[in-house]
Amino acid sequence: MQASEDSSRQEPATRRRRTGGRSARVRTQVLEAVGALLLEAGYDGLTVDAVAERAGVHRTTVYRRWRDVGHLLADVLDTASDDTWTPPDTGSLEDDLTALNQEVYEALAGGGPNLTMALIAAGFRSPEAAAALSRFWDDRYARCAAVVTRAADRGELPGPADSRALLIAATAPLYHELLLIRAVPDPTLPHRAARVAAAAARAGTFSTPQ
Amino acid sequence: MQASEDSSRQEPATRRRRTGGRSARVRTQVLEAVGALLLEAGYDGLTVDAVAERAGVHRTTVYRRWRDVGHLLADVLDTASDDTWTPPDTGSLEDDLTALNQEVYEALAGGGPNLTMALIAAGFRSPEAAAALSRFWDDRYARCAAVVTRAADRGELPGPADSRALLIAATAPLYHELLLIRAVPDPTLPHRAARVAAAAARAGTFSTPQ
Repeated sequence: MQASEDSSRQEPATRRRRTGGRSARVRTQVLEAVGALLLEAGYDGLTVDAVAERAGVHRTTVYRRWRDVGHLLADVLDTASDDTWTPPDTGSLEDDLTALNQEVYEALAGGGPNLTMALIAAGFRSPEAAAALSRFWDDRYARCAAVVTRAADRGELPGPADSRALLIAATAPLYHELLLIRAVPDPTLPHRAARVAAAAARAGTFSTPQ
Repeated sequence: MQASEDSSRQEPATRRRRTGGRSARVRTQVLEAVGALLLEAGYDGLTVDAVAERAGVHRTTVYRRWRDVGHLLADVLDTASDDTWTPPDTGSLEDDLTALNQEVYEALAGGGPNLTMALIAAGFRSPEAAAALSRFWDDRYARCAAVVTRAADRGELPGPADSRALLIAATAPLYHELLLIRAVPDPTLPHRAARVAAAAARAGTFSTPQ
């Protein structure tokens, strides 16, 4: 990681605006270039040289900081977890899961170039991308545990539940239909899959020992 | 498709053994070569020339009959549906789904080279492979409809159910955990996912109008 000596010589106001200085700016440019190239040409169009050119950054900088395409992809995914995203809080388990599924549905069935799908496809080519995808999902499932805890606290469930298993039951049919089977997107799918997971949860299928 | 004139000149017994004659033999050799190369080197190692060499068949034959890697992969997948596979019939919905999931689990979590995973990964590279995968899954879900019909007939469900949605609910968490998230394989997963789908089915979540 390069230190941000450049920005330290600037006015504080400017420094604040350019959050993190030159190093962070370069990182943003490079990761945006990775996303753009991935969308345009897929994993095969993704080379360190193409990323450097697209980002307007010297290739040596990219090689030194990221080494290869796998580490570039991993950084894109790890950066995606650096957000303040929190799961929906609608007041009922089924509606929370439906809202979550709606986000997944829009990411996968939006039509046109699809970064989520391109990143998942890259996971089949690069072990670093695959590991970063796992971390990304783990982080999302950990944040979504609140959905399940709130449902248990409201008395919607017979007791504490395995939130990860419940969340995977709710979302997995979307990835399966839209990503693996590539079925024609069905707009009722987010709610249908949420309903199934919520019904199984009410029946105690995800219950954990107290 | 080449006619099998060669074999028609042989003795009936021999002809029967060589089912379909030279043309079918070539096809078997070529499709086996596709599977072997896919396992060894993935989609990137798969070229028509490499397949021809591995199969011991002239490259012109492969080009004429299959044209490209996408059509070779599609034929591998379509051939996989030419079997007599039927879903398990254990006498209960939950056990049938568990047995089904056990097959998926073994295909995905077996360790070592994994043709199922390699074919799914190829689906992200080749539209023909993606379409063939959809056909393969459609065929499997159609055959598995018997599992759901039998459960309804036994009175395990409140009425007729959407078998495809039920089967996807049962199996999708396995693909999600083992193929997308690449979680450490958990041998209790086949039964846990089956239990969730069966509980939701008993609660009427998959019910269709009679």
